[in-house]
Amino acid sequence: MSWIKVFSPATIGNIGPGFDVLGLAVKGLGDIVEARKIDSGIRISSIKSELELSKNPTKNTAGIAAYEVLKLLNEKGGIEFKIKKGLPAGSGLGSSAASATAAAFATNYLYGNKLSKQELILPATKAEEKVSGGFFADNTAPALLGGATLTRSCLPLDIIKIGSISDLKIILVTPEIFVLTKTARKILPKKIPLKNFVHNMANSCLITAAFAKDDYPLFARSLNDVIIEPVRAKLIKGFDVVKKNAIKAGADGMTISGSGPTVFAVTDSSRKAKSIENAMVSTFKKFRVNTTSIITEVDSEGTRLINNS
Amino acid sequence: MSWIKVFSPATIGNIGPGFDVLGLAVKGLGDIVEARKIDSGIRISSIKSELELSKNPTKNTAGIAAYEVLKLLNEKGGIEFKIKKGLPAGSGLGSSAASATAAAFATNYLYGNKLSKQELILPATKAEEKVSGGFFADNTAPALLGGATLTRSCLPLDIIKIGSISDLKIILVTPEIFVLTKTARKILPKKIPLKNFVHNMANSCLITAAFAKDDYPLFARSLNDVIIEPVRAKLIKGFDVVKKNAIKAGADGMTISGSGPTVFAVTDSSRKAKSIENAMVSTFKKFRVNTTSIITEVDSEGTRLINNS
Repeated sequence: MSWIKVFSPATIGNIGPGFDVLGLAVKGLGDIVEARKIDSGIRISSIKSELELSKNPTKNTAGIAAYEVLKLLNEKGGIEFKIKKGLPAGSGLGSSAASATAAAFATNYLYGNKLSKQELILPATKAEEKVSGGFFADNTAPALLGGATLTRSCLPLDIIKIGSISDLKIILVTPEIFVLTKTARKILPKKIPLKNFVHNMANSCLITAAFAKDDYPLFARSLNDVIIEPVRAKLIKGFDVVKKNAIKAGADGMTISGSGPTVFAVTDSSRKAKSIENAMVSTFKKFRVNTTSIITEVDSEGTRLINNS
Repeated sequence: MSWIKVFSPATIGNIGPGFDVLGLAVKGLGDIVEARKIDSGIRISSIKSELELSKNPTKNTAGIAAYEVLKLLNEKGGIEFKIKKGLPAGSGLGSSAASATAAAFATNYLYGNKLSKQELILPATKAEEKVSGGFFADNTAPALLGGATLTRSCLPLDIIKIGSISDLKIILVTPEIFVLTKTARKILPKKIPLKNFVHNMANSCLITAAFAKDDYPLFARSLNDVIIEPVRAKLIKGFDVVKKNAIKAGADGMTISGSGPTVFAVTDSSRKAKSIENAMVSTFKKFRVNTTSIITEVDSEGTRLINNS
């Protein structure tokens, strides 16, 4: 049986104020999953990644997602994967979601392509749940659909693709700090002031309008989170100074991607993007934190087949 | 000096989950303000309304709005008004906002039309504040701009017009119950569970996407408010049964307009709209509550000059 190759992009959960609701796919980073049909069972024959990850298909999101898709399709056949991680685990860029969605897409494709990307969100999110401990689609949905997505409800799953912003430049900086999603969830407040709810909701609605209308200026002033960022920023050494310097360098906003530690700043100017990146990286360095960084933009396509060559 | 005539529509504050953020202008109900230049001072020479309202221009939102606009324009001249209230005060349909916006629009128009509708939101909202006790633009903004609006921030004022939904039919039912905005604010919770924040935010984002894309089916499933409605519904006799029967009659949702007591249900079918209206009115009647009702749609134009005849 011949191999296919599937790419699934990195994703920014929350997009600032939109905790557990908004998500965004970005270009230039992601996982590549090669797959082929086999007679039975799910096999992960290789994983290229910085950290060592389990090849046990019941413990790897790719394996679990494949299992869920085969179950949905009522297929007895099997699948073999080779995984090339382009996203480190625990970076806050939807690493486990990228593997899960690429594997879900590949499995469906090899077995007759009967399910839509919308229908693949559920099995991919179930796979993510087993690893992250929570059923949240704010990484799996944008990874699959591309652009910005909105999760109205998880049970039952109700998700739409909002759209894209063509002028948006995103500066992603991943500091070498380890933040476990579970820890980042545990420190969240159980109750919040009514006025903070109004603040975050208003900004999330504006982000939604901005992506629906492809309008960068609307988006630029809406990256304001008064609920989650103040709590999670404490897990990221130097956060406040990095943010101050990013904005001084021209960014229209900076906040945490998902549960962190990756942070992202936004602008619509390529020239400014370079200065912002430099400011963020050098500020982290002053706090003795090494980083990897990239200037990128919205990936409006989402999970897709790529050339086999 | 010759008279002009300005119409300003009724508005639905919150649009369900979007407390203090979303607002919507509706057709068929509103205030008419006639105005003409006078040498100096602000005079309200007549008010046609069910309830007696003060003609003192410092106590009437129309008079205060005119004062604020003249101040902005740095004008020494005056203005005279005749007001015809089409909206009863305390109905939850933005009655004071309708007078304020019509008067602000008329004043600006008579004195050279130098301010945009966007710029008239501030003086109109200041006028509303003096009467309602809070600076909220979720009625003044949609009344002026038309369609659905989004208030990102009140201080400084940051508001956008999202758009309209052409297929939306709105069944407005005003029960003869008196709810003071101040009371409806006092009973609100000071803190709310994080999960309710996520729920309301997700639904408000979907409403935003629906108005941005003119997409009724998106809107239909998003009229869900788990924060404000459960508290304010207690001020409206029969609310739960009216809602149950509205949905049984085919409504896709029903909730409170602003601080109530007006409630509204939604559908995209004119035929269903009539049955829903009947169900709501007759259910209120079973609770010995008289109502006035109307089937209407989005007013996408907002405050405007109307024919003088």
